[in-house]
Amino acid sequence: MAMASRREHQEEGEDYGDAATMGELRRLQAGYAWADVASLEPGAAAARVRVRGAAQAVRAVGRRVAFLVLRQGAATVQCVVAGGDGGMARFAAGLSRESVVDVAGVVSLPREPVRGATQQVEIQVEKLHCVSRAVPNLPIGVDDAARSEEDVARAKAAGEQLVHVGQDKRLDYRVIDLRTAANQAIFRVQCQVENIFRQVLLSEGFVGIHTPKLIGGSSEGGAAVFKLDYNGQPACLAQSPQLHKQMAVCGGFGRVFEVGPVFRAEDSNTHRHLCEFVGLDVEMALKDDYSEASKNLSFLRSESTVCLGTKLFASHGRDFVWQVCDLVDRLFVAMFDHLNKNCAMELEAIQRQYPFKPLKARLVRFRYWIAFRLTFSYMYLATTLRLDYDQGIRMLHEAGVHVDPMGDLNTEAEKKLGDLVRDKYGTEFYMLCRYPSAVRPFYTMPCSEDPRYSCSFDVFVRGEEIISGAQRVHVPELLEAQAAARGIDVATIASYIDAFRYGAPPHGGFGVGLERVVMLFCGLGNIRKTSLFPRDPKRLAP
Amino acid sequence: MAMASRREHQEEGEDYGDAATMGELRRLQAGYAWADVASLEPGAAAARVRVRGAAQAVRAVGRRVAFLVLRQGAATVQCVVAGGDGGMARFAAGLSRESVVDVAGVVSLPREPVRGATQQVEIQVEKLHCVSRAVPNLPIGVDDAARSEEDVARAKAAGEQLVHVGQDKRLDYRVIDLRTAANQAIFRVQCQVENIFRQVLLSEGFVGIHTPKLIGGSSEGGAAVFKLDYNGQPACLAQSPQLHKQMAVCGGFGRVFEVGPVFRAEDSNTHRHLCEFVGLDVEMALKDDYSEASKNLSFLRSESTVCLGTKLFASHGRDFVWQVCDLVDRLFVAMFDHLNKNCAMELEAIQRQYPFKPLKARLVRFRYWIAFRLTFSYMYLATTLRLDYDQGIRMLHEAGVHVDPMGDLNTEAEKKLGDLVRDKYGTEFYMLCRYPSAVRPFYTMPCSEDPRYSCSFDVFVRGEEIISGAQRVHVPELLEAQAAARGIDVATIASYIDAFRYGAPPHGGFGVGLERVVMLFCGLGNIRKTSLFPRDPKRLAP
Repeated sequence: MAMASRREHQEEGEDYGDAATMGELRRLQAGYAWADVASLEPGAAAARVRVRGAAQAVRAVGRRVAFLVLRQGAATVQCVVAGGDGGMARFAAGLSRESVVDVAGVVSLPREPVRGATQQVEIQVEKLHCVSRAVPNLPIGVDDAARSEEDVARAKAAGEQLVHVGQDKRLDYRVIDLRTAANQAIFRVQCQVENIFRQVLLSEGFVGIHTPKLIGGSSEGGAAVFKLDYNGQPACLAQSPQLHKQMAVCGGFGRVFEVGPVFRAEDSNTHRHLCEFVGLDVEMALKDDYSEASKNLSFLRSESTVCLGTKLFASHGRDFVWQVCDLVDRLFVAMFDHLNKNCAMELEAIQRQYPFKPLKARLVRFRYWIAFRLTFSYMYLATTLRLDYDQGIRMLHEAGVHVDPMGDLNTEAEKKLGDLVRDKYGTEFYMLCRYPSAVRPFYTMPCSEDPRYSCSFDVFVRGEEIISGAQRVHVPELLEAQAAARGIDVATIASYIDAFRYGAPPHGGFGVGLERVVMLFCGLGNIRKTSLFPRDPKRLAP
Repeated sequence: MAMASRREHQEEGEDYGDAATMGELRRLQAGYAWADVASLEPGAAAARVRVRGAAQAVRAVGRRVAFLVLRQGAATVQCVVAGGDGGMARFAAGLSRESVVDVAGVVSLPREPVRGATQQVEIQVEKLHCVSRAVPNLPIGVDDAARSEEDVARAKAAGEQLVHVGQDKRLDYRVIDLRTAANQAIFRVQCQVENIFRQVLLSEGFVGIHTPKLIGGSSEGGAAVFKLDYNGQPACLAQSPQLHKQMAVCGGFGRVFEVGPVFRAEDSNTHRHLCEFVGLDVEMALKDDYSEASKNLSFLRSESTVCLGTKLFASHGRDFVWQVCDLVDRLFVAMFDHLNKNCAMELEAIQRQYPFKPLKARLVRFRYWIAFRLTFSYMYLATTLRLDYDQGIRMLHEAGVHVDPMGDLNTEAEKKLGDLVRDKYGTEFYMLCRYPSAVRPFYTMPCSEDPRYSCSFDVFVRGEEIISGAQRVHVPELLEAQAAARGIDVATIASYIDAFRYGAPPHGGFGVGLERVVMLFCGLGNIRKTSLFPRDPKRLAP
């Protein structure tokens, strides 16, 4: 182990002091290359490195040796501070937890495996510097926040009392809470979900747009809207980009998507509602039987009435809304595949703190016949399970749960149906189609053969809704009538309704809650865990 | 040309009528493959295709022939409706402009080049169907909205009166206005700008985040904030993600970015202010002389004092904010390259309606020495011009424009400086660094050697600011003092300031206005042209 002279210790063993207040950093560690903690593998042994990280744990051994665990993102490495007269070790021992620290030293292989750090090497510290000193008494500890409920319970059973940090306290001190391995992983997974969403859509010719969040009327009616004064005009925050994304389609952008905040002033204190969340929205012009692939599919559908619910969306290739469902299929199959393949480390980190069973997203395979070299052969086609609302109601009925067949499903019934579907079809990811018109927004297209039902669908993951979609009404007279029937002041959405008077293609789309996708994919049980700084009816800070 | 029987004409020559109100489309055009207008090249001659588009122009020739120009996005194709007893031609002639129409027919090569359509083939129509009928008197015509001011002036000089649609009327009927080729291009370019921004950052290990738009305090102080009631608590809309993106860095995400709406209640009725726009935001932890490449660069800088303004950010490798500037460099060089290479068609379409000179974004090339095989050689390094604020003031001074050297530059002075820089350095894209501390927000790090100046920069395109960036204060005491000195109630941002008490790395970042980037890259002159549904002090609709 390299030794450092007493003079050096004294010089570097000091905090920045006043200089820090001016953003100054002394340049003392030349000759060492900056390294990421995650990159410190046994192959790096003997390298001279510099690492900046948070002092996650500090432990003094006698007066001359200290162990310092440095954390960067979710990776941690043990640093050994020793040698000389012990000045640097004492300085290390005096570091408050979570202080930001620079170390320079040599990577070494420990004699025994390191416990309490993710990396299997150590750094023999030659220089040590505190960049930002944390207060000595942190409101919550990162290790306490990182503990699983199981660990707390296990310790309790063994007679030991471990600190458990409750949800509210975590959120009050979110800046510390976010440093746990699970949280570092959750928001990286979230970033990937958004990224795949964008990539798939861009590859299919969609244009990413941004619609205004400040609007005149209330976008979807109802009371759950934040109101404000807009330079003397009454305004509100958009409850969804619904109206404007449809107007973009009418504006000649055939296929659009948007990622942006959505505001709901609902007083819903549940595990799955937020007052502000991130909406992933899609809207696209629809044509009848638009491709050969879809023709095969619609042939197939007429063969398999049960699972695919063919009857629902008219049987003669008029199933416009299927095109939207097909896109949902492609998007989410790509997303689940990507997460399982490329985010294994992140999912494992989430698992450690919040154990969950991997999502059962079994695709339903159908055999269909094709003509091949003058003989007939068959192929399999994989698609997400699609049930019709009536079927869902029937399944619930048979299980003894009685719900109004023309009403909406409550959270409990949705959960129950999710269980029934999982048991019967082996999947926790499915679509429920053809909702009663009465329980859908005014802009939803009614079914042609029975207007009591609508060309709409919801997508469920683990028995909870994450996507809502439909074909929209592109006929202004019908739109006006449906809005008025729901008590919406048509004058406040005049420019929206007028958009369909200038030539409007049939179209449909859907909206996804980003936080819900991550929550349900990872079985996290509370949507506040997947919002960086959540906003619920009671929380407006930090 | 294929002929259709009288019976067929009667059946298909009808509008959907009542059936349309139920979202029904009859499936009459089997045997024709759906085609995009843009894909109809001479190679497609003799193909049987179906096309859905807007009836941009209709012209009857006698009683038996009609020409119909169908538009899809920015592409248009001429369709020839003829034959039979002229029933279909009369139906075509009766179509209102902008109605959405399906045609099925055969692609043919015209005897003479087609004028008034982008595609050089025609469709000989066999079947014709109106999907959505537009009102006969549109509030604005797409061709009128697509006309350049030059064309109107030229026609006037020739004694002809052409309709010119003013900005406000365009925006009132944005759904029609968006259908012009220029607008179709502008928002595709905008989507690409965002996309490159994301791709470059993701490739450099940044995590995309979403911070809340509903916040307790006012994010940056000042009066330009929209206030609202949040379930009984006073709240406001975030004027930027500034505070929360910094908190995300403190939360262990070393490098983050965000794309999202930004709200400003300013009563600024200018060509470059909006009350809601899309912010591209970046925040990253900074280290001193973090890589060998940057070491070369800092060596270089000390050699070239004039253009790079080395003195400014301390001379001993302490130039943290340079790392932020370097990222801006990489981002915008990638962006400009991508747009010029991959959006040529879109830029041309914009050019046709709004002529602009391509942006001069000359990189300043510096020679630097490297050791290579025991001999010394030199290489060139390309970087964006960086001037210091003092230098800018001096240039203005020398040009006879007198401004307060410790005050902010007004729009006029910025424009003038842009001209001077273009003339002297041959670039319209440059950075102005080291602004006086007094004119920057409270969270800006002052320069270590002279706190009257700050570690900050703005980036200018064509003499207008598009980016504002800086190193931030990560020392809570200094942050508190600077906030208080600017009259901000420190209690309202307590959770933000506290974030730096738990160990905080030095960091910096910047914010870009998406609409401004597109406006200035394309020299559009008014930011309302680059916002899909703009919001200014007077406009809250559509």
